Amino acid sequence: MQLFIGNKNYSTWSLRAWYLMSKFNIKFAEQQLVLDTPEFYDTLKNSFAVQKVPALIDGDLQVWDSLAICEYINDAYLSNAAWPIDSAQRATARSLSAEMHSSFMALRNEMPMNIRATREVELSAAAKKDLARIDEIFAIQQARYPNAWLFGEFSIADAMYAPVVFRLKTYQISLSTAAEQYCQHVLNCPTLQQWITESSKETDIVACDEAGIDAI
Amino acid sequence: MQLFIGNKNYSTWSLRAWYLMSKFNIKFAEQQLVLDTPEFYDTLKNSFAVQKVPALIDGDLQVWDSLAICEYINDAYLSNAAWPIDSAQRATARSLSAEMHSSFMALRNEMPMNIRATREVELSAAAKKDLARIDEIFAIQQARYPNAWLFGEFSIADAMYAPVVFRLKTYQISLSTAAEQYCQHVLNCPTLQQWITESSKETDIVACDEAGIDAI
Ligand SMILES: N[C@@H](CCC(=O)N[C@@H](CS)C(=O)NCC(=O)O)C(=O)O
Ligand SMILES: N[C@@H](CCC(=O)N[C@@H](CS)C(=O)NCC(=O)O)C(=O)O
Repeated sequence: MQLFIGNKNYSTWSLRAWYLMSKFNIKFAEQQLVLDTPEFYDTLKNSFAVQKVPALIDGDLQVWDSLAICEYINDAYLSNAAWPIDSAQRATARSLSAEMHSSFMALRNEMPMNIRATREVELSAAAKKDLARIDEIFAIQQARYPNAWLFGEFSIADAMYAPVVFRLKTYQISLSTAAEQYCQHVLNCPTLQQWITESSKETDIVACDEAGIDAI
Repeated sequence: MQLFIGNKNYSTWSLRAWYLMSKFNIKFAEQQLVLDTPEFYDTLKNSFAVQKVPALIDGDLQVWDSLAICEYINDAYLSNAAWPIDSAQRATARSLSAEMHSSFMALRNEMPMNIRATREVELSAAAKKDLARIDEIFAIQQARYPNAWLFGEFSIADAMYAPVVFRLKTYQISLSTAAEQYCQHVLNCPTLQQWITESSKETDIVACDEAGIDAI
């Protein structure tokens, strides 16, 4: 199995799939491509209809898009262990994951992920609304599962929200105590620490990300 | 089970959940709310953390976001019948659905759904690229399953792409013959015809949609 990802410093969508697979000890060959280079597009063009990362090859099968990769791994390798067992909790986890997948555009545009940098930022009203919603989600779930993952055990929902946790940290956003507690729980995860260490060793600069235009 | 939806004429995301549930004969009470009104927000606030449609109440359970509702119904009521049985096909169907859920922003912004209207539109390069990708998706799947749904049998993928089919029609976009064939297959579906009939009876005008800003 090969997982194509972008620069660890910038690629939020790559992180989701990589994190889910790494955390569940799925064996894969990591194929890293530098965003915004001819090699990036040339390599992906050989195997995929969409030239974006993350993208997964498993035998004859191509899977693209971070959420679809997570669902595929859950389905094909984890007998559903990547979602909460309880059907009500699973429905909530899917709602939160799909909400993340299709929303928070202002936050994404104004706070592109850049793990190496420490930034300050002037946010629009829309981005502030996005942040308030993130805070609410983390706080509600912490009230249910204190000092734990969003649904107690690690799930796809945590993988989907991990890039936001990095953003909250590098942009020095202050959150409610409960939301802060969740972020700390995530940042303590050794698998995520590995991503941070590896991203800090990268030297490529991706201009559009640095300029504040999210490559998402 | 109660499904909250917006105006049938405008609400693309509502259509996805409504279509999936209706097509699979899931019994639900349709709760229609007029977009962009105080009642819309007041009603949703009583039950949901996010004031957006579609939103589903099933007993004690709240599910929001169109893709999560589709996955929930598939999981809780359809024993997975809403995805292709073959695991490779299922992975592709999930990839296409997640791609739709998180992409095609230019197309959405420049071609808001308005089933009643017939429109002409000057598209940006980004929107044209989105349209070319849609055409490619439909054509590839038609080559595999001629005159049929994206994966032969109706699946969540068809529900996810149905709003785009309406847009292609009302904006009079010309497509490849194969893509056209898929659109025709979708438009012939009696369940979808019912949505069209009901949308044509609506009289509310939602200003932001009419102005070309997608309420998506
Ligand atoms: N919805 C996709 C988005 C993937 C995406 O946009 N990836 C970015 C990098 S983080 C990319 O590959 N950009 C290259 C391009 O758009 O040309 C997902 O969730 O995987
Ligand atoms: N990602 C959500 C989006 C839902 C959404 O944005 N719905 C629109 C109507 S089509 C809405 O409720 N807008 C109200 C608002 O944003 O205030 C989904 O797939 O269900």
